[in-house]
Amino acid sequence: MKTFTNVKDLGNLKAAVSEAFVVKQHRYDYKYLGENRTLLMVFFNSSLRTRLSTQKAGMNLGMNTIVLDINQGAWKLETERGVIMDGDKTEHLLEAIPVMGCYADIIAVRSFARFENKEFDYSETILNQFIQYSEKPVISMEAATGHPLQAFADLITIEEYKKTQRPKVVLTWAPHPKALPQAVPNSFADFMNEADVNFVITHPEGYELDEKFIRGAHVEYDQDKALQGADFVYAKNWAAYTDPNYGKVLRKDMSWTISKKKMALTNNAFFMHCLPVRRNMIVTDDVIESPQSIVIPEAANREISAQVVLKRILEAL
Amino acid sequence: MKTFTNVKDLGNLKAAVSEAFVVKQHRYDYKYLGENRTLLMVFFNSSLRTRLSTQKAGMNLGMNTIVLDINQGAWKLETERGVIMDGDKTEHLLEAIPVMGCYADIIAVRSFARFENKEFDYSETILNQFIQYSEKPVISMEAATGHPLQAFADLITIEEYKKTQRPKVVLTWAPHPKALPQAVPNSFADFMNEADVNFVITHPEGYELDEKFIRGAHVEYDQDKALQGADFVYAKNWAAYTDPNYGKVLRKDMSWTISKKKMALTNNAFFMHCLPVRRNMIVTDDVIESPQSIVIPEAANREISAQVVLKRILEAL
Amino acid sequence: MKTFTNVKDLGNLKAAVSEAFVVKQHRYDYKYLGENRTLLMVFFNSSLRTRLSTQKAGMNLGMNTIVLDINQGAWKLETERGVIMDGDKTEHLLEAIPVMGCYADIIAVRSFARFENKEFDYSETILNQFIQYSEKPVISMEAATGHPLQAFADLITIEEYKKTQRPKVVLTWAPHPKALPQAVPNSFADFMNEADVNFVITHPEGYELDEKFIRGAHVEYDQDKALQGADFVYAKNWAAYTDPNYGKVLRKDMSWTISKKKMALTNNAFFMHCLPVRRNMIVTDDVIESPQSIVIPEAANREISAQVVLKRILEAL
Repeated sequence: MKTFTNVKDLGNLKAAVSEAFVVKQHRYDYKYLGENRTLLMVFFNSSLRTRLSTQKAGMNLGMNTIVLDINQGAWKLETERGVIMDGDKTEHLLEAIPVMGCYADIIAVRSFARFENKEFDYSETILNQFIQYSEKPVISMEAATGHPLQAFADLITIEEYKKTQRPKVVLTWAPHPKALPQAVPNSFADFMNEADVNFVITHPEGYELDEKFIRGAHVEYDQDKALQGADFVYAKNWAAYTDPNYGKVLRKDMSWTISKKKMALTNNAFFMHCLPVRRNMIVTDDVIESPQSIVIPEAANREISAQVVLKRILEAL
Repeated sequence: MKTFTNVKDLGNLKAAVSEAFVVKQHRYDYKYLGENRTLLMVFFNSSLRTRLSTQKAGMNLGMNTIVLDINQGAWKLETERGVIMDGDKTEHLLEAIPVMGCYADIIAVRSFARFENKEFDYSETILNQFIQYSEKPVISMEAATGHPLQAFADLITIEEYKKTQRPKVVLTWAPHPKALPQAVPNSFADFMNEADVNFVITHPEGYELDEKFIRGAHVEYDQDKALQGADFVYAKNWAAYTDPNYGKVLRKDMSWTISKKKMALTNNAFFMHCLPVRRNMIVTDDVIESPQSIVIPEAANREISAQVVLKRILEAL
Repeated sequence: MKTFTNVKDLGNLKAAVSEAFVVKQHRYDYKYLGENRTLLMVFFNSSLRTRLSTQKAGMNLGMNTIVLDINQGAWKLETERGVIMDGDKTEHLLEAIPVMGCYADIIAVRSFARFENKEFDYSETILNQFIQYSEKPVISMEAATGHPLQAFADLITIEEYKKTQRPKVVLTWAPHPKALPQAVPNSFADFMNEADVNFVITHPEGYELDEKFIRGAHVEYDQDKALQGADFVYAKNWAAYTDPNYGKVLRKDMSWTISKKKMALTNNAFFMHCLPVRRNMIVTDDVIESPQSIVIPEAANREISAQVVLKRILEAL
């Protein structure tokens, strides 16, 4: 394993989940793998869970870990080739990336969609430059179009909590004051489409996601109908993907907020969210604080998904 | 030991000081305690000594250490429940805290008084949320009303430098251009009241501290009189505590600045300050640079106080 | 070895380069040296290569490493003595430095020239305060007038790539939109003057460097003439040093930019630059991307130069 950017990098998904359960029980048993190995975590954007869980996973494996916040303490980076660099950007990614590669055995990168240019975002320009120029294995810690460490943790959590062989998992759009990338719903769909679940997506018209990730999954525009019989409700906001509205917030009203009333439609479903979550926009206080809310164990599994990915990359070095 | 927020958490104070002297001589002898243990240091405010000394203490004990600056690189946090989160705060402490708890064995927190709401500050709202929701041992790295790692280091330093069995220790207010919390004087009083010293507090009228920490200690409003015969002069500024002036600066004139003339009133006292210190406001250059100034050994003992606390928590895990 | 601020600290330079080649092949063989030792890296300015390579070097040697960004998360520091500190600076370097020394075995410092006061810069006021007051070995990670870790890495790189016993090495000024310190060209000259190379400096009139570093090296004001027969072209911008223009940008036109046409004048020279580099100001895209560009291996050697220096200091502790 040399990169981790989507579900296919994990190969057999059942085997990956099984490995996650082993790692979770024996997280300090693989420290020999990381000896004299350095994990460099590069952040172009804010992070709490990803920062802590990925660093913890690297440390669990005995790695040296270095955290680099590009916008704090490093140089501002130019990302386009051919530019006369006479402005505020001091360094070009085409130098910065191979330089980072010099000092790392594995590079983990966070770089969100910027919503300035759909083609730039959806061709994963930044992440792919890291893959192409660093000469080192690269892990997405949420890129422009995907957040696979989150989706893998989500799947592990669903496997832990499911009460039926093939649970109904509903990904529902929910309102939010600002435009958010589609990375989390994209990767969640990417994983659920390969998992043994009954997967339904619900969102208002205009919020359709990229077919590359949806791959024909059932989309139900009536949220109430979608929630009926759900075993897991996975709430998330995203901005519009389809042209000409790419990156726009089309609505913010709270009729799609996950409330007790919405949850009553389900099969006593578990509530999931990748966090950070806007309370009383995405979900009401009472739902996220209810016993059916599993957002914290879900976050805890971020350490496990990261550790499985790092472990596999270390094993292949 | 599961939390460290005040002097009582240390139990027998003489035993704690004795342990500190042992740790200081053998700081790398306890690395087995911290193996596979993670110390998460969470900062809502700036830090130099606390940041370095606590991280060093964790490393001395063989721990993995992670530093998180909430206002740099993480998400802005909402602290009040029930809010519709449609503003600039992306995440609620009620999620962020248990999430941090997932990835840490011990959480150390710095969160200063904000001077917006006395009740919010003096009920230690932030620190107590960490204690209540993280499910992990919590250490105060200076909270709204106390800075016990500093006060413990101060006591260790006094024990090292004292020339009599029961020295006279004077806590004196001194001027400063901005409003500062009462955390340091509160904890210093909290510790001195339990230590074998003759403790005197001096400050201008209007700067009275919370009786919870003062507990009837002798307050002398005449600074010159208080300084007479002092073996240790502990200078510190704080803003007013008593209503209706909570958080206000009542005076800034330099008649309370610790100068050579003031020190001449003492029993050749040692000068102490928790640092950072405003020179020529709190204390003159010549006093802080004099041989009687022990601010640097005092700072060095921050590593020791932190290590004793971490060691005890690790032993109890 | 107790400080590293210039070429003389390395003693015999051939021996230092030989040691670098050994360290490069056996970088994890010296971990016993750093056990229970702490490297504190203090940044007053931005950093990418220096930050990563020095931390990596410390980790290679088994050290605990702590990174402190003074302007993020720490207190703003006063640097002048005698000031009444009633402004925005919370702490004085005269306290902060010995405090840092308490928690570190080696301190590495980055503090650029400020171009406010030539005497302040060229007396290395900040770096020398660290050397004087920290009581610990101090390494320059680029100070006001020198960047010796870079120059040492440059020399290692030249020794690796040279095809003749005594190559011609040309340091050439190149244009840049903003005023940059002379630290890199100063140290490069400092090292080249002691190395077995034919060293030539070329720059427009008015960009003369401090004779302390140049020490009579050949200066050729005609860039084309200087480049003839060069085996290595080392490009770098710097602001004027000589009075009354200290810190000023005298010209920005691109007639001094290193282009294919300029490189054609050389003996198929290797292109070097310390990075970060402004593309199409200092050097054209096609030159920096050509097979003769060795900027990435040069950056990789920053880990090695730092490790040799740290290793020697640890051996002397």
